[in-house]
Amino acid sequence: MRNFMLAAIAATALPTAALAQIDPDALRDAALKDEIAWDITEGITTEIGPRLAGTEAEARARAWAVKKLAALGFSNVRNEPFPMKTWVRGEERLEVLAPFAQPLTLTALGNSGATGSRGLEAEVVYFPDLAALQAAPDGSLKGKIAFVSHSMTRTQDGSQYGAFGAVRRSGPATASRKGAAAILIRSVGTDYHRNPHAGGTNFPAGVAPIPAAALSLPDAEQLERIVKRGQPVKVKLTLTPRQIGTTQSGNVIAEVPGSDPAAGIVLVACHLDSWDLGTGAFDDAAGCGIVTAAAKRIMDAGQPRRTIRILWAGAEEVGVFGGTAYFEKHKVERHAAAAESDFGADRIWRVDFKFPAAAKPVADRVATALSPLGIARGKDPASGGADVSALVASGVPGIDLQQDGTRYFDLHHTPDDTLDKVDPVQLRQNVAAWTAMLAVVANAPEPLGAAQ
Amino acid sequence: MRNFMLAAIAATALPTAALAQIDPDALRDAALKDEIAWDITEGITTEIGPRLAGTEAEARARAWAVKKLAALGFSNVRNEPFPMKTWVRGEERLEVLAPFAQPLTLTALGNSGATGSRGLEAEVVYFPDLAALQAAPDGSLKGKIAFVSHSMTRTQDGSQYGAFGAVRRSGPATASRKGAAAILIRSVGTDYHRNPHAGGTNFPAGVAPIPAAALSLPDAEQLERIVKRGQPVKVKLTLTPRQIGTTQSGNVIAEVPGSDPAAGIVLVACHLDSWDLGTGAFDDAAGCGIVTAAAKRIMDAGQPRRTIRILWAGAEEVGVFGGTAYFEKHKVERHAAAAESDFGADRIWRVDFKFPAAAKPVADRVATALSPLGIARGKDPASGGADVSALVASGVPGIDLQQDGTRYFDLHHTPDDTLDKVDPVQLRQNVAAWTAMLAVVANAPEPLGAAQ
Repeated sequence: MRNFMLAAIAATALPTAALAQIDPDALRDAALKDEIAWDITEGITTEIGPRLAGTEAEARARAWAVKKLAALGFSNVRNEPFPMKTWVRGEERLEVLAPFAQPLTLTALGNSGATGSRGLEAEVVYFPDLAALQAAPDGSLKGKIAFVSHSMTRTQDGSQYGAFGAVRRSGPATASRKGAAAILIRSVGTDYHRNPHAGGTNFPAGVAPIPAAALSLPDAEQLERIVKRGQPVKVKLTLTPRQIGTTQSGNVIAEVPGSDPAAGIVLVACHLDSWDLGTGAFDDAAGCGIVTAAAKRIMDAGQPRRTIRILWAGAEEVGVFGGTAYFEKHKVERHAAAAESDFGADRIWRVDFKFPAAAKPVADRVATALSPLGIARGKDPASGGADVSALVASGVPGIDLQQDGTRYFDLHHTPDDTLDKVDPVQLRQNVAAWTAMLAVVANAPEPLGAAQ
Repeated sequence: MRNFMLAAIAATALPTAALAQIDPDALRDAALKDEIAWDITEGITTEIGPRLAGTEAEARARAWAVKKLAALGFSNVRNEPFPMKTWVRGEERLEVLAPFAQPLTLTALGNSGATGSRGLEAEVVYFPDLAALQAAPDGSLKGKIAFVSHSMTRTQDGSQYGAFGAVRRSGPATASRKGAAAILIRSVGTDYHRNPHAGGTNFPAGVAPIPAAALSLPDAEQLERIVKRGQPVKVKLTLTPRQIGTTQSGNVIAEVPGSDPAAGIVLVACHLDSWDLGTGAFDDAAGCGIVTAAAKRIMDAGQPRRTIRILWAGAEEVGVFGGTAYFEKHKVERHAAAAESDFGADRIWRVDFKFPAAAKPVADRVATALSPLGIARGKDPASGGADVSALVASGVPGIDLQQDGTRYFDLHHTPDDTLDKVDPVQLRQNVAAWTAMLAVVANAPEPLGAAQ
């Protein structure tokens, strides 16, 4: 609210108030004092907490979101529900029985099978990476528990998630095909805390879901040391997650109506659901705070040419169900551009575009407006982010405002993803960047988007 | 083993081999390549893991210790058993029921009472610090759960543990006296991970033990935010720890016999037990590694004048039962000096003494030998460390080799106290300092100790 008042004072002070308000540079600099993004991030994480897709907690989060977006003054605020198949966590324990009895810390992967409440006792077979698991002869793991490691390291762009995340995405199905009774993986993460990283896995049709869980890095290295002593390692694994059938999720949508409906919609997205272990501050309450704060700043500065649509997607973590539902329902509408904030809350350092040649001047102006924030243009084609990637793949111009991911995979999908991890100063830099981008893109006179 | 061979080569190369071997500076520098301390730390944490006092895991740790100390070539290796009353952890859960339903992470304090397996539902009453709890009128907490915060910060000397640790040590008894049904505290720690800090509390005779638990810092601040929204906060607390009666603990002892029995014993201590949430690498496997590696280096260099006695104390965490048992059994013996390593494995930066005036030249020579390691003399009187403090208080000269505690209370009593936290380079600096200290003190010609 403080910033809104500052904007109002600025509007009074300047003779060319209306023009000044939509000047990307002025809006950008005012956004460096933003408090809206923090207010939203603090609100969701405090008043809802964890909000696993398809659960009652996610439904409460949607109600919170509708109320908040309406209170902020947006138009056409609504929930667009969709059904989904929902998995929920149960008990989870791992005990080394021999040769060195001790408990280890782990968490079940989304879609993991269950051991039953009495647990599963079996011998561990160690694989240093996914390729080694893939090379194991069929049937060689029968009755055993595969334990698969990897070598992911921190990078600023977070790009190692693609390569090393495969151990979580496809490792369990691979182990199941080879007859394993269960699989343990080293968490797809980079921190040395006793917080395992959750995340979804997939068992394609015909592949039996087996119990699948991630050990924290300290626990994975402990189990590696135990294995490397050379004696057979026997463990007892207890995981009791359940598939609870079809429940409801939904996308929450709000708009800043534009003056030129034919100019298409600028879609700015985040996701409202979180994994269940933390309160989803970095992933992705902050993303919702950032895009919403930026859209409000544009709204408060005067009606933009293009409609800005805010999408707080449901059920991203468990399979981008919200993004898919949005695409199916809205792909017939004209989308001028799409972007998502879903990589934490640290400083944006790079911007990538996937723009048609005719719109190159728009991208150039965005890059110029971002430069004072320490953001340089990259060479990758933008993918848009999970919930808008189908739109971008279908030809809608995409923009990636790339956040510093150096510590993202310390927190990603862990109990540690909590509000205290959000740095208000870096959060404001994000809002400034999104505000500048929206000021340019929503008001660009050039045509944007495939349908125009 | 590598270092032992280096020492052997040095002995061959130097004409005055025997003297060179007990030169504190040469022994100190050779210890900067130590691998014994790491080997012990890695061994205890990997092959035993958590080892709560009085449990079967601690008994396995004693057996491991006796075997290891004998294999290293020490004399008079033995276990000195003692009985103790033992408390063990049970289930632990906290759910906010209203106004913002969500789970929070916590752990029971040692000696906590139990809620029963069905849990306890009650309203939370917030106190910003222990003084505020103490000021609450008697009876005002009847049927309520007290929630007490504090403001501990990181310090290099760890000194804030004294002041802010009071919330854990005496807060539960204070809350019980005022009629509280249970107490929650902000963990006595400095890290923002979802790892609550365990630790003992006390209920004096006549004060009913109530359920008492610590929230991780992110959880404590979440509960504070929820409380500060101004609505009544109702929670469900489930803690099922148990007092299991009298079991056995023990002190493991080993010696390097000296050439002059009348010169007294130099006691170097650590503790073998750990809290149950982590593997006790920092607290205190590393301490056992450090003092033992240093004693072995002195032993390998030739018989010292004074007997060096190594004490791996049992049951330190839960009430210094091992240190007390040692004092009662051995106080009649001549102790020339006593010191303990029990503050992690980071670099030693200061040395304090509590020496009689006649022994000042010995302290001076120790300080001189430590100086090249970046260690300066402090002005505090040494207390010796928990397991030797009774000896030092009784007049035995004490030495404190102060470790950098900046991150100690990030890890202290948490699940995060694991091997990966030990920096091998800083661990070796510790060994070098203890080796230099022992080389001076064990061989000093001056009289040391009250009984001489």
